[in-house]
Amino acid sequence: MKTLQCVPNFSEGRDPNFLRELQTVLARHPVKVLDLSMNKDHNRADATFLGAPEAVETAAMAVASRALELIDMRTHKGSHPRMGAVDVVPFVPMRGMTMAEAVEIARRFGRAFAKTQGIPVFFYEEACTSEARRSLADIRKGEYEGMPRKLQDPAWIVDAGPQQLNARSGVTAVSARMPLIAFNVNLHTDDVEVAKKIANAVRHVGGGLRFVRAIGLRLEDKGIVQVSMNLLNYHKTPIHRALELIKAEAARYGVLVKECELVGMIPIEALEEVASYYLQIPGFNSRQVIEYHLLPD
Amino acid sequence: MKTLQCVPNFSEGRDPNFLRELQTVLARHPVKVLDLSMNKDHNRADATFLGAPEAVETAAMAVASRALELIDMRTHKGSHPRMGAVDVVPFVPMRGMTMAEAVEIARRFGRAFAKTQGIPVFFYEEACTSEARRSLADIRKGEYEGMPRKLQDPAWIVDAGPQQLNARSGVTAVSARMPLIAFNVNLHTDDVEVAKKIANAVRHVGGGLRFVRAIGLRLEDKGIVQVSMNLLNYHKTPIHRALELIKAEAARYGVLVKECELVGMIPIEALEEVASYYLQIPGFNSRQVIEYHLLPD
Repeated sequence: MKTLQCVPNFSEGRDPNFLRELQTVLARHPVKVLDLSMNKDHNRADATFLGAPEAVETAAMAVASRALELIDMRTHKGSHPRMGAVDVVPFVPMRGMTMAEAVEIARRFGRAFAKTQGIPVFFYEEACTSEARRSLADIRKGEYEGMPRKLQDPAWIVDAGPQQLNARSGVTAVSARMPLIAFNVNLHTDDVEVAKKIANAVRHVGGGLRFVRAIGLRLEDKGIVQVSMNLLNYHKTPIHRALELIKAEAARYGVLVKECELVGMIPIEALEEVASYYLQIPGFNSRQVIEYHLLPD
Repeated sequence: MKTLQCVPNFSEGRDPNFLRELQTVLARHPVKVLDLSMNKDHNRADATFLGAPEAVETAAMAVASRALELIDMRTHKGSHPRMGAVDVVPFVPMRGMTMAEAVEIARRFGRAFAKTQGIPVFFYEEACTSEARRSLADIRKGEYEGMPRKLQDPAWIVDAGPQQLNARSGVTAVSARMPLIAFNVNLHTDDVEVAKKIANAVRHVGGGLRFVRAIGLRLEDKGIVQVSMNLLNYHKTPIHRALELIKAEAARYGVLVKECELVGMIPIEALEEVASYYLQIPGFNSRQVIEYHLLPD
């Protein structure tokens, strides 16, 4: 059975009715909702749901369309960068799906959404139409307030929809990407400089591992520091490699790892890499996991 | 959805038609067959299938009854210890099932099988009726040839069926047990004494870990040695603990682990223990694995 995941982010994080509205819409579709949450500081909500590709595509359209009715970007303030009411719509290929199939769905979704709702749409990450648009940060630069000017720049011809801001709804970015793993490493020290130096050593931008984004920060309530990572490709930069590199860098400060946190979800394949490395099982694969055989065909 | 696994072992390992017969019978039931295999030296076959508890119980009865028709113990020879045509029938509780439920099913199956087929039946492991019968090795001691005398011993009153050997079909042992993990550790040495000493150090019988059975042996074709383990309770004696103990013992001989092998299947919970230990994630659980949410409810 082919399974697709969708993780749209919306620019509303304060009105609890908003999440209930999303839930009501999603409940009408044959998808499994894994998470619905909002953040007040960010003033942002996100939904995580999965199912058969067609069902997920249809549910994404329904929930994004409903969000447009409920959100007015002209009054939106929040600490998280954003450019639209439906800010991003990433599609994540899961079981039995290729990235190419997810890209096709993302682009079809983006074109349909742009056309029916009159919203400028950019494609990013694996769905991007040029390397200059691969990074969401580049597309979103200037945020909602900067979009009128950005849309006049010949370098930013939209991938779908009108070449003009929809003042109420802003701009939407649609992507296909691998599942992202949020993995935090807590260190036995209260020196945040140590966490920052280690984060810089392991992350791509600092010369570290290609598919690692990382920051160092202080956990005030625990009196320790953390290297907080996003792992963007767990096949090419598996969890163990990032963790072992952090341990190796921490050793130069005489610091040990206290514990780690996995935030949100992980694909079983990423667990296989863990077992394969630490248990030294070269050919380990998910067919050896009993539960694999309980999954629907 | 409750899931039960059954792994019956049969005293026929040479006639390929036998496996086809098992397959034909199992195909009539709504169970998923994970493995059907036989071993010529052992002259023994085993089937692994799983599904809803009722379906598995019914399928086990059908396949065991068919095996009785096909096997005659009076002519059976093989290197593996055995005492009956349907030698053992272990039931393994999987998703959503307790061991108590598996024990209930094992005993009901054993009583029904004994009654309809006229076979002496003993219950062992978690289904045992006294501690003296927990170990299969104790029940099977004397093997098929020794059963007539054993059944005259007042210590060996059967748990179900006649107190008398069925000469054609022998005796059957029925159990409930946890999934067993077969895990082998290959060492960078050709000295089999090292493997034997390490095996003895880590296994329960030698003073080692409670739920580890282990032997040391030489892998002739690879020119190295192996500690071959059965892990009988991956909750109480998780894989990492056995592996790390082997590494620690191997260090005294200056030997490193070359690689490991997982033979057959592993429950996802055992993988979680691996991630929780090596990635230092204290509260890791299967709800964080995306595929968990794809399993039937």
